[in-house]
Amino acid sequence: MDTPVAAGYPLYHRVAGELAQAIQGGSLRTGDRLPSVRRLCQQHGVSASTITLAYRWLENQALVEARPKSGYFVAPRHQPLPEPEIDTRMGRPGFVTADDLTREFLYGNDDPLAAPSFCPMPARSLLPEAKLRHLLARMNRLHPEFASRYKITGSPALRQEIARRSVGAGVRLRPEEIILTNGGTEAIFLALRSAARVGDTIAIESPCYWMLLEIIRSLGMRSIEIPTHPREGISVEALDLATRVLGAVKACVVIPNFNNPLGSLMPLENKRRLVALAAERGFTLVETDIYGETYFGDERPPVLKSFDTRDDVILCSAFTKTVAPGYRVGWMAPGRHFKTAQSHKFHTSITGGMLEQEVLAEFIRDGGYDHHMRKLRASLKLQSQQMADAVARHFPAGCKLSRPQGGLMLWIELPPQVDSRKVFEQARHEHIGCAPGATFSCSTRFDHFIRLHYGDPWSAKLDAHIRRLGEIVTSYL
Amino acid sequence: MDTPVAAGYPLYHRVAGELAQAIQGGSLRTGDRLPSVRRLCQQHGVSASTITLAYRWLENQALVEARPKSGYFVAPRHQPLPEPEIDTRMGRPGFVTADDLTREFLYGNDDPLAAPSFCPMPARSLLPEAKLRHLLARMNRLHPEFASRYKITGSPALRQEIARRSVGAGVRLRPEEIILTNGGTEAIFLALRSAARVGDTIAIESPCYWMLLEIIRSLGMRSIEIPTHPREGISVEALDLATRVLGAVKACVVIPNFNNPLGSLMPLENKRRLVALAAERGFTLVETDIYGETYFGDERPPVLKSFDTRDDVILCSAFTKTVAPGYRVGWMAPGRHFKTAQSHKFHTSITGGMLEQEVLAEFIRDGGYDHHMRKLRASLKLQSQQMADAVARHFPAGCKLSRPQGGLMLWIELPPQVDSRKVFEQARHEHIGCAPGATFSCSTRFDHFIRLHYGDPWSAKLDAHIRRLGEIVTSYL
Repeated sequence: MDTPVAAGYPLYHRVAGELAQAIQGGSLRTGDRLPSVRRLCQQHGVSASTITLAYRWLENQALVEARPKSGYFVAPRHQPLPEPEIDTRMGRPGFVTADDLTREFLYGNDDPLAAPSFCPMPARSLLPEAKLRHLLARMNRLHPEFASRYKITGSPALRQEIARRSVGAGVRLRPEEIILTNGGTEAIFLALRSAARVGDTIAIESPCYWMLLEIIRSLGMRSIEIPTHPREGISVEALDLATRVLGAVKACVVIPNFNNPLGSLMPLENKRRLVALAAERGFTLVETDIYGETYFGDERPPVLKSFDTRDDVILCSAFTKTVAPGYRVGWMAPGRHFKTAQSHKFHTSITGGMLEQEVLAEFIRDGGYDHHMRKLRASLKLQSQQMADAVARHFPAGCKLSRPQGGLMLWIELPPQVDSRKVFEQARHEHIGCAPGATFSCSTRFDHFIRLHYGDPWSAKLDAHIRRLGEIVTSYL
Repeated sequence: MDTPVAAGYPLYHRVAGELAQAIQGGSLRTGDRLPSVRRLCQQHGVSASTITLAYRWLENQALVEARPKSGYFVAPRHQPLPEPEIDTRMGRPGFVTADDLTREFLYGNDDPLAAPSFCPMPARSLLPEAKLRHLLARMNRLHPEFASRYKITGSPALRQEIARRSVGAGVRLRPEEIILTNGGTEAIFLALRSAARVGDTIAIESPCYWMLLEIIRSLGMRSIEIPTHPREGISVEALDLATRVLGAVKACVVIPNFNNPLGSLMPLENKRRLVALAAERGFTLVETDIYGETYFGDERPPVLKSFDTRDDVILCSAFTKTVAPGYRVGWMAPGRHFKTAQSHKFHTSITGGMLEQEVLAEFIRDGGYDHHMRKLRASLKLQSQQMADAVARHFPAGCKLSRPQGGLMLWIELPPQVDSRKVFEQARHEHIGCAPGATFSCSTRFDHFIRLHYGDPWSAKLDAHIRRLGEIVTSYL
């Protein structure tokens, strides 16, 4: 693209050229608001139509984007890094071995200086703390008995609200089908205990949420890693192959909507085929939909369970990634596994705190939740672009980058000679939170990958940390 | 004992006789305050020394007791019912089978009309709701971030306070040895997962807390029931026999201080021998001390862990029976099993809510906890006597009754032909919370027992319910 700064060009070229330079030079960043038309008229002493022409030119160059009623903003840069490709090597079933790395990674969570933080979650400023504090104060005033008494199945109001909202995900849950859990982790733990036993094989996405590997390990089950496409999610064809022998796979755990760490979204047709395959082969689908409402597209994608005619999908979710990580409230709809799952819930921990559950119920009921999620989605989408831009700017050639369609994570393929454990360890030392790829698989195939999350609003500190992370990666080339 | 009402007796005899009749006839009940000396002087037109003589006579008859600075109260009646005897039949190791009765019993917890309630816990009026509400409001004001952020190992302040208090139980825990859990149930669940595996045999008290049987069942472990004395707890001799074959028993779960349902307290020497036996035979002791601070005697009994020189005892406790059942906060000190237990905790539920943990920490730190426990102990001791009196009054001949030395429960042996399941079902129908003996064992040996709890202040309603329960028992004779 030529930048029109020469004096002989039309007036609008001069205005546009100055802005283009500011954007390309980095002094204006993705998501920054550009000066208003009126302001630029005054500044350059030209007419509004000239400025409008300048902005139209910048839009054509994909440098800025207009937002209705808000003005012009720096557009996300076309991602110059290619996407990672699907690793089609099929794993073999095997027991998960303990990995001290995951423990170290987990402990990073308590580092208050880390930017990004180690655990992928939205920044405090993006979470509805003030609103929740207000609701909690009221609930505490009205219901002192929540300290002294609990219902063994938790808050009826929250189960009601979850059921009401489930329509938006394509299902019609009834409150009595829902079990409240201590976060999403307990939901998945209970789901696996309900659907499988010691020694059984669980099909998982590859790469896969590291906590899931830990859960499978702790339950003495085996895992088989199924190739998973960075944009379209788990390969139904590969799963078809892996489940040819009846009973070889007892359950399959997937995050169809914005997989962790890929941010992938399964196309509708794949979801339909996956549910049909599970029915045909007799394995249980455990679906995690924690990120389902963080879509960057126009609408909320449906859950696998919406295609489930046999009530065999166990749907798990939580409020821990989008509303109140500290409340530790999750839930599950175990379908025909309900009785088993509820029994396991009782003798794992009976139930969770009523207060937080009731506050969340009220937050959903009064519309606060919907309002919050609209804002959060816009922030995460912008931040994903800003983080991707920064990685593109600061990381060495040869890196590849996922294109998340929702969720909180970026998945970065480093040049193959880079050991991401070393990158992780050095970064941790410098309070830069990233997750080493090795924790996302039992194989070594992701040893040169790292995961970042973009839960924090863009800042100079974050930019400096990503730049430094790029330097660390480069130092291992 | 003759009651001195005849006119020829000294004056004080007349006064004492009227009071004795009121007590024996039931119009004055255990724990009721008697009129002051001054009041009786006016009423009977006699001198203070006459009234004092009357009270001394009543004291000698063990009908009243003097409390310093408080006056005279109706003394607990000598329990006319004998104690149940230890059932010395040793069980055989076996898998625990599912029992729908326990589920029905659990669901009874949500019956708001039940008196006594189904779940043994102190009445709301005996719990520090107002204080906790106040602390929670302050914590919520000061720390809105507890909604958005958590520490993976929970509140450092609470672990600190638990460690500080542990000295009173005869141990010196460090905060970093403590894992916070979602109630006592999760602590025991994690303890068993850390100490044993599928198929292993767990020695348990007989009778035994029914939830423990459920936990063992859900983990695919076997149980062996060890005879347990109603007043002295588990039989170390019987456990010695059961563990002769090395490795035959992997772990032993006990409640040495105020066993549920017996209220038994292991003598110091038995505790010492039990810990030595575990060391010699190489099984892990899982100790539940949830009731340890509800002693009716003069001092808090030490925990088994205080005799543990190898750091092999896993100590479990919770605030759910004495302070805030609704907060669902428990803890464990797993000793040398720490790393395994913490790992299990992470992938069971990561951690619990920070807010409740911090409120409890503050409650302990500012002395509120100690103050509350003193009052609670006095209430429970009195209520245990009142409940025992009522059972003695209302239950048919042939019943036997435990003599708890702390805790919350009474264990009642009914005549052998009575099926306690039927008693339970009829009682539940009439909102009377009792637990059927069958849920406390895999054998049938306690099928004619029931458990009651005395967490509620004595009331006419409670008396009527116990009377009715006595009638139900009688109807099955």
